[in-house]
Amino acid sequence: MNRVYNFSAGPSMLPLPVLEKAASELVCYGNSGMSVMEMSHRSPDYEAIIADGEAMFRRLMNIPDNYKVLFLQGGASTQFAAVPMNLIKRTGKADYIVSGQFSGKAYKEAQKLGYDVKCIASSKDDNFDHVPVIKREDIREDAAYLHICFNNTIYGTKFPYIPDTGDIPLVADMSSCILSEPIDVSKFGVIYAGAQKNMAPAGVTVVIVREDLLDYSEEKMPTMLEWKTQAENGSMYNTPPCYSIYMAKLVYEWLLSIGGLEEMKKRNEKKAKLLYDYLDSQNYYIAPVKKESRSMMNVTFVTGDADLDKKFASEASAAGLKNLKGHRSVGGMRASIYNAMPYEGVEKLVAFMKEFAENNPKA
Amino acid sequence: MNRVYNFSAGPSMLPLPVLEKAASELVCYGNSGMSVMEMSHRSPDYEAIIADGEAMFRRLMNIPDNYKVLFLQGGASTQFAAVPMNLIKRTGKADYIVSGQFSGKAYKEAQKLGYDVKCIASSKDDNFDHVPVIKREDIREDAAYLHICFNNTIYGTKFPYIPDTGDIPLVADMSSCILSEPIDVSKFGVIYAGAQKNMAPAGVTVVIVREDLLDYSEEKMPTMLEWKTQAENGSMYNTPPCYSIYMAKLVYEWLLSIGGLEEMKKRNEKKAKLLYDYLDSQNYYIAPVKKESRSMMNVTFVTGDADLDKKFASEASAAGLKNLKGHRSVGGMRASIYNAMPYEGVEKLVAFMKEFAENNPKA
Repeated sequence: MNRVYNFSAGPSMLPLPVLEKAASELVCYGNSGMSVMEMSHRSPDYEAIIADGEAMFRRLMNIPDNYKVLFLQGGASTQFAAVPMNLIKRTGKADYIVSGQFSGKAYKEAQKLGYDVKCIASSKDDNFDHVPVIKREDIREDAAYLHICFNNTIYGTKFPYIPDTGDIPLVADMSSCILSEPIDVSKFGVIYAGAQKNMAPAGVTVVIVREDLLDYSEEKMPTMLEWKTQAENGSMYNTPPCYSIYMAKLVYEWLLSIGGLEEMKKRNEKKAKLLYDYLDSQNYYIAPVKKESRSMMNVTFVTGDADLDKKFASEASAAGLKNLKGHRSVGGMRASIYNAMPYEGVEKLVAFMKEFAENNPKA
Repeated sequence: MNRVYNFSAGPSMLPLPVLEKAASELVCYGNSGMSVMEMSHRSPDYEAIIADGEAMFRRLMNIPDNYKVLFLQGGASTQFAAVPMNLIKRTGKADYIVSGQFSGKAYKEAQKLGYDVKCIASSKDDNFDHVPVIKREDIREDAAYLHICFNNTIYGTKFPYIPDTGDIPLVADMSSCILSEPIDVSKFGVIYAGAQKNMAPAGVTVVIVREDLLDYSEEKMPTMLEWKTQAENGSMYNTPPCYSIYMAKLVYEWLLSIGGLEEMKKRNEKKAKLLYDYLDSQNYYIAPVKKESRSMMNVTFVTGDADLDKKFASEASAAGLKNLKGHRSVGGMRASIYNAMPYEGVEKLVAFMKEFAENNPKA
């Protein structure tokens, strides 16, 4: 098998040992006589999988006991609606920071649902090349929550700080940075993340929610979107996405086996440093993101020439460096170097970038 | 590998050739150099998977061109909310038939959302031992739709007829009978089904919706639940549950390879006949469902003695006949004999039932 380096922004690479383990037990799991895909979600075998998975996730992220962990469906986009439906009744209004496309979508979804929401800071006028820095006074005193997207996949930015919100719950979409480094969960009211970057195949969404925030859900909202109902039913109000949760558990196991999130952070920093150091050392490629807001997971760059960008992505693909084309809304290139991307993949990318620059001098 | 016969009501058995194929290409799909789990949903490789899957599904079910097929998340339970949110604006009210637990949940969800819904027929007073028969006049003339659950997994009943609703769209939850036999899709406005019985592992929900019914969605509803949005985006408004859709495609391929739904129906009828004929030939076990409402997928029976029922499920499990315990809300036994259950599994079950009856005479 000729495995490629897949720089896709998501779904994205999974650790090879995880894929190999999943393949080896796909037809028959342990002594169960069946595939995990065939198991009743209420069977002892499956209940052990989801319970062990949650325990490992809690250990990895050091999640305090007063937080619930939910394994849901629908992706972060479903949570864009679920967040206000579950929380806004706290005070009746909520604040948002718009630092990229997905935080913008979250904000618009709350607006669409008819809620009193306010964008208190945005970097849109700067083409989202940085994350806005806010102070506590910028948040409305009676906001039910402040919503942020912690890592902006499309633009390649990341919050360089955790906003100080005082008693106002901080709600963060961490889809594209969860499990990439340790994070102080206690600073957040809610963290949610689609799995398909660092956690599992697409199809499961994790919500970490502080227990005291489970009491504000709308009466007239879809039951499936209600965190309280899901928490009371151990994520089994209906049949959960069993196999995706099993895959997440294998990823958690792998993360623990390499030393947890401290070690993962070291590896991710090393990969990102290699790429950013190269970008900073030359002037053929331009890295549009302000240094202090750089993402460790998604590295964006352009040649400044749309035709050259296109040629780059195409030739890189032929060389086994896949999916380097930037998001269709911004163009250029984007290298997503999530947990499962090996250091060698980034080395190969930098070598390719050097070669491409030499072979394609600008006019 | 010692493969068991798994009579679980869902998640449930998948065809062995499907599992074996999935295992063989889990780490690396074709020449892609990656797992299907790692593919960008917007990559040509994945777009071919979802397009081919939809084409096969349309062919299997003979779906007319004026119907959209959506691959969504959240299970049938999410559709319980999505159905009224997408349709009720047509007239402002809707009718339901309650023939079991899930149709009851669908009805209650619409009530919870504050809608004007009416239960026009229920078999609750008869412990759901049959499906109510209704006439066209029983439906409110100005109902936006009539909602039914076509096969009631828990009680083991199935609609022996397709209600004549005239111009009123018929909406059917077919989670536990889809793909078990040919069905005239044109008689329905909407068909939806969670995948985890006959189609794929849990994690994908199929919605088949007539195009003219896409124009009635609420403004203030979660975008992810809006069929029109999903239809316009080819089920990719956000990242779909890619791997579950791939698994569904493998199941569609298998169904086509054996001869499609005509052949599947023959096999399912043969399995169900074996079990029902035995039940009708003796008086140790009682089959509570009225004959005309019997499900071809879920066969319920009891000994009439709760302790014996428990012993039955336990000894059957030890004999490799798994998950025969009835749903926790009704007790007794339930044999779910979906598409992937081989005839031999039902033969073994009947043999076991005979042996158990001999060895455990009633007082």
